Amino acid sequence: MTYADRWLLPDGVEEILPADAKPIEFLRRQLLDLYGAWGYDLVIPPLLEYTDSLLIGLSKDVDLLTFKVTDLLTGRTLGIRADITPQTARMDAHSFTRTGANRLCYAGHVVYTKPKNPLATRTPIQAGVEFYGEPGIAADIEVVSLLLESLRVAGLPKLHIDLGHVGIYRALVSAAGLSAAQEESFFELLQRKAMTEIRVWVAENIQIPAIAALFVDLPLLAGDKSILAVARERFAVLAPDAVEAVDQLIAVADTIEKRYPQAVMYFDLGELRGYHYLTGLVFAAFAPGYGNPVASGGRYDHIGEVFGRARPATGFAVDITALGKLGILPAANCGGIAVIASDDPAQWAVIQQLRANGERVVSVFDSQSLAESGCDRQLVSTGETYKVEAL
Amino acid sequence: MTYADRWLLPDGVEEILPADAKPIEFLRRQLLDLYGAWGYDLVIPPLLEYTDSLLIGLSKDVDLLTFKVTDLLTGRTLGIRADITPQTARMDAHSFTRTGANRLCYAGHVVYTKPKNPLATRTPIQAGVEFYGEPGIAADIEVVSLLLESLRVAGLPKLHIDLGHVGIYRALVSAAGLSAAQEESFFELLQRKAMTEIRVWVAENIQIPAIAALFVDLPLLAGDKSILAVARERFAVLAPDAVEAVDQLIAVADTIEKRYPQAVMYFDLGELRGYHYLTGLVFAAFAPGYGNPVASGGRYDHIGEVFGRARPATGFAVDITALGKLGILPAANCGGIAVIASDDPAQWAVIQQLRANGERVVSVFDSQSLAESGCDRQLVSTGETYKVEAL
Repeated sequence: MTYADRWLLPDGVEEILPADAKPIEFLRRQLLDLYGAWGYDLVIPPLLEYTDSLLIGLSKDVDLLTFKVTDLLTGRTLGIRADITPQTARMDAHSFTRTGANRLCYAGHVVYTKPKNPLATRTPIQAGVEFYGEPGIAADIEVVSLLLESLRVAGLPKLHIDLGHVGIYRALVSAAGLSAAQEESFFELLQRKAMTEIRVWVAENIQIPAIAALFVDLPLLAGDKSILAVARERFAVLAPDAVEAVDQLIAVADTIEKRYPQAVMYFDLGELRGYHYLTGLVFAAFAPGYGNPVASGGRYDHIGEVFGRARPATGFAVDITALGKLGILPAANCGGIAVIASDDPAQWAVIQQLRANGERVVSVFDSQSLAESGCDRQLVSTGETYKVEAL
Repeated sequence: MTYADRWLLPDGVEEILPADAKPIEFLRRQLLDLYGAWGYDLVIPPLLEYTDSLLIGLSKDVDLLTFKVTDLLTGRTLGIRADITPQTARMDAHSFTRTGANRLCYAGHVVYTKPKNPLATRTPIQAGVEFYGEPGIAADIEVVSLLLESLRVAGLPKLHIDLGHVGIYRALVSAAGLSAAQEESFFELLQRKAMTEIRVWVAENIQIPAIAALFVDLPLLAGDKSILAVARERFAVLAPDAVEAVDQLIAVADTIEKRYPQAVMYFDLGELRGYHYLTGLVFAAFAPGYGNPVASGGRYDHIGEVFGRARPATGFAVDITALGKLGILPAANCGGIAVIASDDPAQWAVIQQLRANGERVVSVFDSQSLAESGCDRQLVSTGETYKVEAL
């Protein structure tokens, strides 16, 4: 980006110039084609709709991140989407007649009122999938597999994902009999992994020593697949629901390591991203050189409830803009064939044939030089016909 | 669209379901590839920016059509783009270092506060090109050619375009010595082609009979290429600048009819769409069964002025959403291969190979039936290997 561009655009609002736009468009197509090959049908939700449809309690953050305008036609409040998932949930509930599995995919801009972190864009392009109607872990495994395929398509050298399960913390909260206020305050400490405060809080709030120990150790239950067996044993007696959640993670791990032996899975049982709306598995993908997830998702079974149709749901979104900045996408294909256009119909026929063959052919007029055309070759007349030669 | 969908979405705000989304995505790709083959570089402007950048006096309409929000970071007003052209003008002025020709293309949503006409969408998807830096008619001819190519790619059976030139009315206004107020009031009558009112107005406002006759006849100067010779003769003595404009139309007509003998050109010298910001050629494309233009454009040489760099400019935008509704795009490719997924790595390998070959392969879980999968084939085990057979 140039200085002038920064000067003119609002902070965090980005335009994408050709050098980046072409690889981003390429990735967008690759991802949509990938999702199509897995049976996910493309939908194009609108950029804005009633906030009543967009802000359906997914999290307080989304509300703050959403620009609102007044609809001139109805006087109601519209939101510029900061998240596409609620739109697909509305569509699954009302726009489809599918009673079984409904696999949807999308790609498009979302807009945030403020950047999610200081240097992040407020106008990222996302692609994603949502799988409605299938409650079993098989759907989660499919979606996690598809996330790994997305990373592969994006050219990431390492397929690195973090996995967790919000059912674990829910089970511990229930085992300890915590109030909603207690659940929230420990949740806040857990998110920050504030170990000292966690110890103090647990000592003050949880009387049964065995359960207190589970709470203190929860943020430490992180690592490779081997921690799942450890966790399973620790939860066995005191929190059987947590065991069920761990078993789901084990099922995912077993299949994924068979399908993608090169994938690196990191399990973090204290991970609670999206805790307020996720209901099961939670996962995110990371890339070297980028501090935030390049993709994230999870299971959110109750999302359709506000639309009158609560269906099982799991999915993820990929941050195409972030992946585009990592420098791993194929560089834009430069060059092309410059031609000083004439009135000769034969020249026009040759130009059109070259374009139909996928060549970039640029007309050069009097006011321009061949050198400015960005081409590496030119079309020249041989007297009888035309041929392409180096510029 | 279903009833429930209409019920939930604001009027004129559309979601696009798979049956339409796939052809629309196909057309979007075809158009961007076409523009790339002609040397137009893809840019992705942001969905919103300062109104100071977006509302640069193109027309009062655009201001009314633009949703405004307050930027939480700066307190300044942002607009959700209702037009992508000003964004490319800003980019040409500040984000590129190109001194000669700068060819840009884009595809994306725009948003209107209210529909442009009763049944139109407020969230159309547009694709377009802008050609900066080339003042000659050759650039206009290139852009009109590319518009015809766009119609061909969209599958329109007839390539039908209307052409005009705002320089003609400007020349007549100057020849008659009209005031700005008179120019505006006749402009308004001309747009409506209100013949009776036009006669009355001309009788009251224009004293020289020969010039008065030109004003009365202007709305009637419409038809095929032959009207250009008629107009040229009529303007010869009294409005030489209008002759220059007609000569530009003749140059376009001559080349286009050679390149696209199947194209139908209709000339309308009283056509003043975009009069307040266009500076030369003006054109629009129509399709059977759709009352509004499916594409429109023209020359707008002063657009970059507010960004400190007024450069020659010509271009057009195609309404992808409108073309998608005409039923001329190839239908979404249905079907696919259903498979009851197992743990067998050999089955997984076969599935992945089929997907890599471009097949749509859909996993079917216990809770679903094969029939619900939308597939026309299935992958079955032969005991030793797997084969695809009809469903």
